[in-house]
Formats: sequence, structure tokens, C-alpha cells
Amino acid sequence: MTNEINVFGVQQTSSSDKAVSLANTEKWITKASQQGADLIVLQELHATDYFCQTQDKLKFSLAEPLDGPTAQFLSIQAQKANAVIVGSIFERRAAGIYHNTALVFDKDGTRAGYYRKMHIPDDPGFYEKYYFTPGDAQGFKPIKTSIGKLGVMICWDQWYPEAARIMALKGAQMLIYPTAIGWDKADDKEEQHGQKEAWIGVQRGHSIANNLPLIAVNRVGHEPDPSHQSCGIDFWGHSFICGQQGELLSINENQQEGLIKATINLNHTEQVRQVWPYFRDRRIDAYKGLDQRYLDDEL
Amino acid sequence: MTNEINVFGVQQTSSSDKAVSLANTEKWITKASQQGADLIVLQELHATDYFCQTQDKLKFSLAEPLDGPTAQFLSIQAQKANAVIVGSIFERRAAGIYHNTALVFDKDGTRAGYYRKMHIPDDPGFYEKYYFTPGDAQGFKPIKTSIGKLGVMICWDQWYPEAARIMALKGAQMLIYPTAIGWDKADDKEEQHGQKEAWIGVQRGHSIANNLPLIAVNRVGHEPDPSHQSCGIDFWGHSFICGQQGELLSINENQQEGLIKATINLNHTEQVRQVWPYFRDRRIDAYKGLDQRYLDDEL
Repeated sequence: MTNEINVFGVQQTSSSDKAVSLANTEKWITKASQQGADLIVLQELHATDYFCQTQDKLKFSLAEPLDGPTAQFLSIQAQKANAVIVGSIFERRAAGIYHNTALVFDKDGTRAGYYRKMHIPDDPGFYEKYYFTPGDAQGFKPIKTSIGKLGVMICWDQWYPEAARIMALKGAQMLIYPTAIGWDKADDKEEQHGQKEAWIGVQRGHSIANNLPLIAVNRVGHEPDPSHQSCGIDFWGHSFICGQQGELLSINENQQEGLIKATINLNHTEQVRQVWPYFRDRRIDAYKGLDQRYLDDEL
Repeated sequence: MTNEINVFGVQQTSSSDKAVSLANTEKWITKASQQGADLIVLQELHATDYFCQTQDKLKFSLAEPLDGPTAQFLSIQAQKANAVIVGSIFERRAAGIYHNTALVFDKDGTRAGYYRKMHIPDDPGFYEKYYFTPGDAQGFKPIKTSIGKLGVMICWDQWYPEAARIMALKGAQMLIYPTAIGWDKADDKEEQHGQKEAWIGVQRGHSIANNLPLIAVNRVGHEPDPSHQSCGIDFWGHSFICGQQGELLSINENQQEGLIKATINLNHTEQVRQVWPYFRDRRIDAYKGLDQRYLDDEL
């Protein structure tokens, strides 16, 4: 039995002007729709530039509620494209509580669910702990849609095997990572290549360990540092889709805008798990300690 | 500060005759020693053929205690080579309790520790659940040696992110997987390629997620099925060493015997973790459920 879906990712540049960014997004969504998309995944914070390069309290004015203008735009796009859309917003949940949130709209434009980024990075040029309150109660929970249960996470989450595993144990049929990751120009080419390969590699690892297809959609283009303290960020693109054993099905290796696409049979997961029964043999009696910071006592 | 060690892996064929297998092993250990090895990793069950292709109670006679002849051989080899050796035995622990066990001997020939395989596979041609009682109380615990703390696991363990993570949380400085994995001749080349790439990919994923160097040493050569029910197994070799970001440092891509080798700076892990602080941001409050078989209630 096959359960095939046409999966698309939109690798794009974004502007500090939401109207410009969303018009660009709409152009790519339309192209994907014309090619029969069932699922269209957008990058992290696609409605704006990556404003976390500096800590600037004026940027909080970019935040929107779960049903704000960007959400309404995404709902309309999902209906027009007749596709499930995974979008991303800077969410204002309450005064002083802002999240980095993925929104999922079903083909009829209804909101199927949302995911608030759980792992929040913070390093030079990526000051996310300043802006984003970590996701809380809902945690890692797949979102039910008409095309399947989607394990939607966001960017920094992609480095954590625990998150992917919990999604799989809760029945996710696909792992999905909207992303904004890029290079520091000060790093040499070898370091940059290693970072990008690690980024692809760790996600392929989640796919293999859980026998789930995976899509990672990354921002592309150079964005300057408003503070001029750094050379800005070169978002490295390389959005990709892999199948249930981590095999690359589509990758946009250029640092240019464009679609990635693949047809995925979600039912293939069960066939692979019958041949490679990792889930049968998990040593759930011996995984104590995964919820600890460090196991000093055992050192 | 550097803390460099010369790491070697021995990819070899093995015979049902232990004396033949160990003489071959000794030849390769000597070569590695002559090249300045600090650490030499042998493949899973290197003293015998891969006897798990059938369920045959006569094979239990191959099992040895923790200080049996193969262990004594390994101790002597470690001294002669002046290297830490990770070896593998079919262990007889007690009447009716047999393990698939890795043994670590320090440079002076003393036993630094042992690891009893925790995840036991079982599928056509790999009837391990018949032979091997799963490892118990010790679980995933790094073994202290004069060159560092070694996160030694065995084969099927290599598909489980949980195991690698626990080793890392307990201070492992390197992940080590003696292995016996191969192809079914009945599978086509594309399927075989995909399996091998998944095997490499999932382990590179553990390396990246934990910022640890990793060595996987796999058996090579064709071994017939004594029952003649299958075409036997083509052990696929491809032993490899990767660095702290999953970058391949050495791989034996031929299906032939040979050494893999790399010089690894164990202290590089801390530098990488400062740039990529995954451990800082783990959501230990939100990893509930990893010790469950499946999270049905949340479906």
C-alpha cells in the first residue's frame, strides 16, 4: 500500500519588510502548488529578516499572535494552494512572553496545530534567548493533518536526537525542520563546509534512527549585522529532503532561492521498520539519565 | 592543548578456527603497533566466524569466561603492542547466561573493563537473541583507560541515539563500535548501498550530536550459511573513523582486510562544544517518555 505525498520546501531570501517577504513566499507557494504540492514547508521566520543578529527591544514589535496577519496569510495560501503549509512566526503570546513558533495549516485553511521552539540557541549573531521564551507544556507533539502526522520542530531542535525520537514515539510520520542557519564570513571554507555537513549529517541521523522521512528548509542569502559588529550572516541554504533511511531525495545546493521537492510514500516507514526493527529492541529499562543535565556521579 | 591519540581499527576476515582467527588478528595488531597505535579496535566476535547465522546449540561451546583464552590473548597483545585494545568475545557468564561482550585491555595488559551488548538484534541470518543474553546492570558506562574514557558499545547498539547520548553524559571521550554487519546477496545493489550508507550515516549522527570522535570496525568477507537456507552473508567492511563533527577521517571502502587509522585530538571535543553548545540547551524537563516503548496515549 502506498500513501504518497508530494513534499515541497521553499528556500528563499526574506526582507525586514513583511509585505515584501510574504509576497516572495506567495510566489514560491504558487509555483509549488502548480506542481501538485500536498505539503509546503517554509523556512524559520520567513516573514522577516533574521532579526536575532542583535538584541534590540524594538524588534519585539514584529511579534504577532497565533492568529495574526502572517497566520491569516498562511491560511489563505493553504486554501489557494490546496496544500498543507508549515509556516513560521515570531509569536506574541502575552506581554513579555514571545515564542519562535511554527504554524501548520491544513488544505482547507484551518489551523491544524502549532509548535513552539523548545531548544533555543544563543551565540554571537544568534541571540535567540533574548527574544524567544522556550516552548513549554505541549513540548514535542506531532501535528495531525489530512496528509499525516507531522513532527514539526524548528532549527536548533535539529541537533537533538531526543526531540526526534519523542516525535517518532508519538507517531510522527515525517520530521520537519524550518531553519535559519548560516556562516560567519570570518570562518574559513573548510570550517564552513564542516558545519554544513554536520548540519545535514545530524538530521540524516534522525531520519535513519527513526525510519522517518525528513525535510529541512533553510533560509538563504546574506543579511548584514545592523550593529556592524560582525560581517553579518551568509545563510547557507542547502535545504533538503531525505527518505526513511536518510537517503537524499532533493537538495538545493546553490545558495540561491528555489524549491526542493520529493514524492514520499509515508507507508514505507513500516516496511523499513520490519527489516530494521530498532523500535522492537529499545532498552527502555536502561535509558535512565537521559533527562539529566550530566551524569557526574557515574564519571 | 592537544591530547592526541593514534587510533587504529582492524578490518579482517575470521575463521571458525579460533587459532586461525587470532593469528590473523595478531598480524594486524603488530602492523598497527609498528605504526604507533595508542588504541586498536577489533571487530565483533573476531575470534570466530559469525556463528549466529543459524541457531545451533553446539555453538555455545565457543563461549569463554571474561578471563578465558581469548581474553588472555588480548592482554598479551596489548602489552606487546603497548596499546589499548578493544576486543570482543562470546562470553560464558554462567550456565545458561551468555553475552556478546567487548573487553578493553590497557597498555600494560590489565583489563580496564568490559561491556556486555545491550541491544540484541534478531532477524534472518542474525539470530542473536538465541545466543546472547542482553547486558544488564552496568548498562552504558564508559571504560576508563590510560588514554581516555572509551564509550564502547557493540554493533546493533550503533542504531540507538539513546545509547550514544548516555555514554556522552557519562563522560565518554570517544564512541567505539565493534561490528559484524553484512549484506544478504538476495538484495539488489541499490538496497545494499542504502543499508551501508544508513549504517555510516546513523553513526556519523551520533558523533555530531555528541561532538565525539567515533570508530566503527566491521568484519569483512563472505561467510556461508551452514544450514544452506540462505546464500550466507557478505560482511560489508567499510570500517571508519570520524572526528567530532562526523567528518570522515579514515574508511576502508574495499571489501578487503586492512587497517583504518587516524590521529585524534580528544580535547577538540571541548572546543567544538563551546562553538556548538548542544549540551547547554538540552530540554531535560521535556524528555519524558524516552524510557517508554511507545507513547500511545499521545497519539
